[in-house]
Amino acid sequence: MRLVTFTRPGKLQQEVGALGAGDAVLDLAAAEPLLRGQSMLDLAAAPALLDKARVALGKAPAVAGAKLCAPIPRTPKNVFCVGKNYHEHAKEFAGSGFDGGAKDVVPPFPVVFSKPHTSIIAQGEKILGHLDPTGGLDYEGELGVVIGQGGRGIAKADALRHVFGYTIINDVTARHLQKRHSQWILGKGLDSFCPMGPAILTADEVPDPTQLVVTTWVNGERRQHAPVADLIFDIPTLIEAISAAVTLEPGDVIATGTPAGVGIGFNPPVFLQSGDVVRIEITGIGVLENPVA
Amino acid sequence: MRLVTFTRPGKLQQEVGALGAGDAVLDLAAAEPLLRGQSMLDLAAAPALLDKARVALGKAPAVAGAKLCAPIPRTPKNVFCVGKNYHEHAKEFAGSGFDGGAKDVVPPFPVVFSKPHTSIIAQGEKILGHLDPTGGLDYEGELGVVIGQGGRGIAKADALRHVFGYTIINDVTARHLQKRHSQWILGKGLDSFCPMGPAILTADEVPDPTQLVVTTWVNGERRQHAPVADLIFDIPTLIEAISAAVTLEPGDVIATGTPAGVGIGFNPPVFLQSGDVVRIEITGIGVLENPVA
Repeated sequence: MRLVTFTRPGKLQQEVGALGAGDAVLDLAAAEPLLRGQSMLDLAAAPALLDKARVALGKAPAVAGAKLCAPIPRTPKNVFCVGKNYHEHAKEFAGSGFDGGAKDVVPPFPVVFSKPHTSIIAQGEKILGHLDPTGGLDYEGELGVVIGQGGRGIAKADALRHVFGYTIINDVTARHLQKRHSQWILGKGLDSFCPMGPAILTADEVPDPTQLVVTTWVNGERRQHAPVADLIFDIPTLIEAISAAVTLEPGDVIATGTPAGVGIGFNPPVFLQSGDVVRIEITGIGVLENPVA
Repeated sequence: MRLVTFTRPGKLQQEVGALGAGDAVLDLAAAEPLLRGQSMLDLAAAPALLDKARVALGKAPAVAGAKLCAPIPRTPKNVFCVGKNYHEHAKEFAGSGFDGGAKDVVPPFPVVFSKPHTSIIAQGEKILGHLDPTGGLDYEGELGVVIGQGGRGIAKADALRHVFGYTIINDVTARHLQKRHSQWILGKGLDSFCPMGPAILTADEVPDPTQLVVTTWVNGERRQHAPVADLIFDIPTLIEAISAAVTLEPGDVIATGTPAGVGIGFNPPVFLQSGDVVRIEITGIGVLENPVA
């Protein structure tokens, strides 16, 4: 099931739906009144609600004029993000000169930072490139892991049981700000710098997330293309490492890192410009496409 | 006014109060029914409510057996924290060998990272030292700035008008994890690693925050003692830098950095042990004291 958060024409209230044939937004609550007023965080926290959604799916009518929001418009904590987590990207980053602080090309431990909820935007919404006055706007297509059952001290072997589903994240980055501030929240957490969506593919449909493939295009030119199997620190390792420190909650999101092919991987770097369109596809989840304002 | 969040004996409901003589918790809502059910975030967002609280203060009865919570138990975003923001501390950190990634002793731009809300604990609550299995537990006494009116692109000259008040933060740190993960959230954002409190001193009582003095003791021995005037990047500069990237919201908290005298400033480093007590005092705000479990 591909779950979405949406609004109806002229309404502000966010509702939970699902994508059907032709990416029509299906009104789950019309088919199952228990889902009315529930948010994606509620579904992530309650397997029983998710079961109701599954039953409702077959008889849910389409919503006319639905507008997609990010599947989780407001995460419980800042979105966790992982840096330098694909070998080829770690090399291109080290070679770019933008990795001011690092000694190791391949990090010995996961490099984790965060983006505040105010950076989250939906499929189709604009990336506010002007918030980076230094002209170093870059894209990073990534698989996002959405936590279901939370907890601290989650063991690697149990980790995938804590995953509610998978989404697409664009870890938009202002490269000069990322380098300048040394810690990354001000170079990566800017308003609109976390496009998320279009949907959450529920974990039951992803028996092996390493088989998912991340592909990114800029203005139709393919820039990134790699299977999640290429991660340096895999999803169970990331969940174990983060939850060793921090209690994870339903709806927390971990962006797992980006493959090679970002703008600073070019020599000279090729940064995003106003009017560019970044399109990211991950197997089975869909397409997340955002223009640069 | 020193605002607090508290619970009553046997109750889970958090309420907003104020500290009176002898640090008694005063029941503002008993004197002003409009304050009933309001949280500290509500007060930070609404100057009119704060005015009501001021009027209520003179006739508010004490609450028997009140237990302090952190003044903002759940911040809208992760708590923003600033690294290496006092000259003498920047030097001791550079000299310690723990600053794996840095080239500059004094950072040319603010170094900003974050701690999730799950790390926030109250005055008196225990720091879970065992969550750092590497034996590198350290303290950092800091002034916390609480945002009132939010916004993006706040100019330095306007910044102090966006401050709701001031609190005390202990930016507890697992030094080996901080170094190991290179980005700092996993070394600093562990559960219980953000003691906050006891109160928020409202901005109207702090005409000049640079005059506040931060003092930290460990087991009664004075370790840190510096005026906020010693900040490398002052409060208006921090608010301008963060809000240039991120929309600030009422109740967001910025921990402004720690003065010299942390455990890794000693040679060899002196880390916290189970049973140690960290006590931080800032002029007019009060005392934040937390034992290590």
